[in-house]
Amino acid sequence: MPQVLSHNLSSGFDFVVATLTCLVKKDNNGSAVLPFAASDLVITPSQWSSHVVGKISSWIDLDSVNDKLRIDSEITLKQEIAWACHLSLQACVLPFPKSASCGNYARCVNQILQGLSNMQLWLRVPLEKSEVMEDDMKDSINPEMFDSWECWNSFRLLCEHHSQLSVALDILPSLPSISSLGRWFGEPVRAAFLHTKSFLTNARGYPCLSKRHQKLVAGFFDHSVQIILSGTSKHNISPGSLPQTKEADNNAIPRHQLRPYLDYVAYLYQRMDPLPEQDRIEHGYRDFLQSPLQPLMDNLEAQTYETFEKDTVKYTQYQRAVCKALVDRIPDENASTTTVVLMVVGAGRGPLVRASLQAAEETGRKLKVYAVEKNPNAVVTLHSLIKLEGWEKLVTVVSCDMRCWEAPEKADILVSELLGSFGDNELSPECLDGAQRFLKEDGISIPSSYTSFVQPVSTSKLYNDVKSHKDLAHFETAYVVKLHRVARLAPTQAVFTFAHPNYSCESNDRYKKLCFEIPPETGSAMVHGFAGYFDATLYKDVHLGIEPNTATPNMFSWFPIFFPLRTPVTVAPGSPVEVHFWRCHGGAKVWYEWCVTSPSASPIHNSGGRSYWVGL
Amino acid sequence: MPQVLSHNLSSGFDFVVATLTCLVKKDNNGSAVLPFAASDLVITPSQWSSHVVGKISSWIDLDSVNDKLRIDSEITLKQEIAWACHLSLQACVLPFPKSASCGNYARCVNQILQGLSNMQLWLRVPLEKSEVMEDDMKDSINPEMFDSWECWNSFRLLCEHHSQLSVALDILPSLPSISSLGRWFGEPVRAAFLHTKSFLTNARGYPCLSKRHQKLVAGFFDHSVQIILSGTSKHNISPGSLPQTKEADNNAIPRHQLRPYLDYVAYLYQRMDPLPEQDRIEHGYRDFLQSPLQPLMDNLEAQTYETFEKDTVKYTQYQRAVCKALVDRIPDENASTTTVVLMVVGAGRGPLVRASLQAAEETGRKLKVYAVEKNPNAVVTLHSLIKLEGWEKLVTVVSCDMRCWEAPEKADILVSELLGSFGDNELSPECLDGAQRFLKEDGISIPSSYTSFVQPVSTSKLYNDVKSHKDLAHFETAYVVKLHRVARLAPTQAVFTFAHPNYSCESNDRYKKLCFEIPPETGSAMVHGFAGYFDATLYKDVHLGIEPNTATPNMFSWFPIFFPLRTPVTVAPGSPVEVHFWRCHGGAKVWYEWCVTSPSASPIHNSGGRSYWVGL
Repeated sequence: MPQVLSHNLSSGFDFVVATLTCLVKKDNNGSAVLPFAASDLVITPSQWSSHVVGKISSWIDLDSVNDKLRIDSEITLKQEIAWACHLSLQACVLPFPKSASCGNYARCVNQILQGLSNMQLWLRVPLEKSEVMEDDMKDSINPEMFDSWECWNSFRLLCEHHSQLSVALDILPSLPSISSLGRWFGEPVRAAFLHTKSFLTNARGYPCLSKRHQKLVAGFFDHSVQIILSGTSKHNISPGSLPQTKEADNNAIPRHQLRPYLDYVAYLYQRMDPLPEQDRIEHGYRDFLQSPLQPLMDNLEAQTYETFEKDTVKYTQYQRAVCKALVDRIPDENASTTTVVLMVVGAGRGPLVRASLQAAEETGRKLKVYAVEKNPNAVVTLHSLIKLEGWEKLVTVVSCDMRCWEAPEKADILVSELLGSFGDNELSPECLDGAQRFLKEDGISIPSSYTSFVQPVSTSKLYNDVKSHKDLAHFETAYVVKLHRVARLAPTQAVFTFAHPNYSCESNDRYKKLCFEIPPETGSAMVHGFAGYFDATLYKDVHLGIEPNTATPNMFSWFPIFFPLRTPVTVAPGSPVEVHFWRCHGGAKVWYEWCVTSPSASPIHNSGGRSYWVGL
Repeated sequence: MPQVLSHNLSSGFDFVVATLTCLVKKDNNGSAVLPFAASDLVITPSQWSSHVVGKISSWIDLDSVNDKLRIDSEITLKQEIAWACHLSLQACVLPFPKSASCGNYARCVNQILQGLSNMQLWLRVPLEKSEVMEDDMKDSINPEMFDSWECWNSFRLLCEHHSQLSVALDILPSLPSISSLGRWFGEPVRAAFLHTKSFLTNARGYPCLSKRHQKLVAGFFDHSVQIILSGTSKHNISPGSLPQTKEADNNAIPRHQLRPYLDYVAYLYQRMDPLPEQDRIEHGYRDFLQSPLQPLMDNLEAQTYETFEKDTVKYTQYQRAVCKALVDRIPDENASTTTVVLMVVGAGRGPLVRASLQAAEETGRKLKVYAVEKNPNAVVTLHSLIKLEGWEKLVTVVSCDMRCWEAPEKADILVSELLGSFGDNELSPECLDGAQRFLKEDGISIPSSYTSFVQPVSTSKLYNDVKSHKDLAHFETAYVVKLHRVARLAPTQAVFTFAHPNYSCESNDRYKKLCFEIPPETGSAMVHGFAGYFDATLYKDVHLGIEPNTATPNMFSWFPIFFPLRTPVTVAPGSPVEVHFWRCHGGAKVWYEWCVTSPSASPIHNSGGRSYWVGL
């Protein structure tokens, strides 16, 4: 073991996956399993825990019809895990179940998980799925079909999504469809075995991967999946043909036979595009659940204003919208004579005031601005900004909630930025309905409308994070979250639309039923919840949003919203996902309710706003 | 209203189902709904609550694609329920959903349920199901198929099995298959509407019901389902043909047009067989969850002994078994010379000692009895019994746990009654393995073997009772319960078998995977858990048990056991139910784990015995 480890580490590998024990004898007293490494002292404790991942005997079959084999397998599994715990290994690889029915294997692993301190168990799963023919879909389930994801899904459901149970994928020479691969990015995949037989040979005799394999491996890099090289070298590269590297002086050490494969994987890693600036900033927020802001009920803090004001892309869009509105409203010939009354409702520390004034300058229109803000702390900053910029004659600051302000005159244009990740979820509709009293009859609201969108997603990470709170309320709350370890299972669909001004005083309650079709080639899938987005029309063709297909690039003010499901729903291939969303109000609050009715009915989430609501 | 009510009550009815409001006008402000009874004062509060069930307007359609109708429906529903609450009605009947997709209706009812104090909501459901042809089963789901149970199932899942949401069935002239009807006995059916058009006419022109309808109505009586007569009289019975009753002097009151139907229903009720003695005794235990006894860990109380000793059928079976064993063991010619050593292990207060001595007398065999009992309190009674009966020379009392007693000689026959509702669940295997040290090599154990059985059941009553504890532990506990409001969905299957003596010291851990086929004509069904039973072979053909097909009649010592599921599983027609049961041991305890793996995987229940176990 010491030699194996030092040879691998010096050859550039980070860790080795090693069998822990060997079956030395079987007698009437059952199998006696002895450690492979004669003692835990052969290497140091930190070497064991940093550089060795245990590999559980692959012969075990806990669902064998042979009782003896089944019972021996259980004993072996428990002994090997106990030994691995003794060595403080970080993880052990469990062999893939021998049959689709893996109830006893899962029961035993689940029992082990209940008492496991820190170690991860990686269930090895071949990346394999029978492809579906057009004709097959018409029949009901074909028993010949194999989809390793389904086996994993049963296993983890039996183990209740245990956070220490994860996946080590086996990458085979041929890969299933892209949409079926996509499912794995919503799963806790920690490692991928890349067998030497999955490599091709390039023109110079070196190992390389197919384009599809390259793309998959890049996806793994992006999701922090460890790559494990396995198998024996299939590429006999003579030492002479090796490129001379700085390690040339290490000639004394025999070169690792898998080194060319490692070099190739390292090359793929180095070749990746560097993470864009914005993604680097947002890296720390990946899959981190945040409660949505309640800017109406609470006053935002200075730091929050500071962050959002830096989103120049957003304010550029607002400026473009105001420009177009000004030009539409005031013909060039009247530009010098007519003053437009523009009110920024929810002015904060002034970014929309600035954008509006810049629009006026750009279009040569005369502007009178009212900056209405309910947060008295922000008003202080607003006053000093105006003084600093010398806008005293142009801008009137109003320290008041827009819903109760008695305006001295009516506005031509109402500008606001009251949108949340799900569009209306920060109560923009209620605020603007309150403000439209002082908008002229032919006045313009910027934004003029906004629509929310959802799509079903698979994300065991977020599901587990919600579950860890062990209460109902967290399962009935929508979260703002930078989605990363997520499989998006179907294209987004529009949910609620609000348009302003809303002079007919249409109710802001909404109800929408949506039906999502997951592509049949995806196979079965698990829906842990719904990702939500918005798109807003600021003015005419100027829009702003985070809906993935139309998202405004390089804008960072909004992460998506996530509506969890209390019980994740497994969806069979070709089965539609029917979901309902409601926007309700009552008392001094607004809330959403949601549920799934197909393939099976879930409870109604957040009934009466009992768990999550936005205060008016 | 006062007239309507008094007419109905004086005609023999218990309550009326009445529309509460009428739509008086619709204008631009929406519908205005006014109470039908001009004031709550027209009848007394106790009359409202005792004799009136409200009927919600049947036109409401909360899932209409017409937004106006949908919103009006919601307003009407809420207003009518509010009015019914004001009147303190005990229940309101909700109309059946207009379409299979009833998400918005369920959401609104669910919201109402959250704030409802005592009133029950009865969802009216037609007893209707398309019958399945042999051929249909091969195809996947046929969209033409209708099964009103599925609609109810979605509705109640959306409302999370709310205990105030129940069913009022509409009995139609033709009835679906018997096994599909059976499902309703696991549901919270509170009332059944029996329409006059569902009645036939007998030879004398009177209304009557078909045999199948009669049987169904009898089932409703047995399950405390209220029968509601609806519709107008289809049987014109001239007053002259009426049988003269004691009410003849009430001629002044016009006879109620539904009276002949009521008389017929009353006749069906009176014709029912009286409840057998045993069922009357057990009536109070119906659907009442009890924790199984732990007679090994705890000492039973005198009252418990008292109850069980009265089960003469049980001890008669034991006596028959001992007789047969004695005759087999000692030929007639040796009867007077050979003394058989019989040990009662777990003798309690002595009923098996008595049964054994009676068997000896009956067969003319000579017996030496050891009565081994670990409960020192029971031993006191045992001693006085022996003195009272004058058995001092025949019986030796041993106050000791059978697992550690050092017997002075070996036994020919070991007699025990250590079985629980699920056979081995009171640790008979462990006790008898401990006692067999003092059984002769060719000795006999009575019982010689026992087997547990399970079957999937639907029982929303028990599910709700378990759920009401609001914790995991209660969902992972098996309960002893007199099952009544239960639908048994498939025939029982054997789970674990234990045989004694067990000289090979086979482990008492067990694992069994079972696959249940619910008859396709049942339709979809919901599995809330599994009912468990046992059957024991005492000796050769003498058996004892509660497995429904072979149950020993008139024995009352055991109710079935119930293994709940944390999340009930909806099973589509023709889909098998695969379930796993484990018997495990560790530390000083024995426990079961269980799970479902088809149609979808449940969590493993009671992992490591965390919630429920039996102490050794």
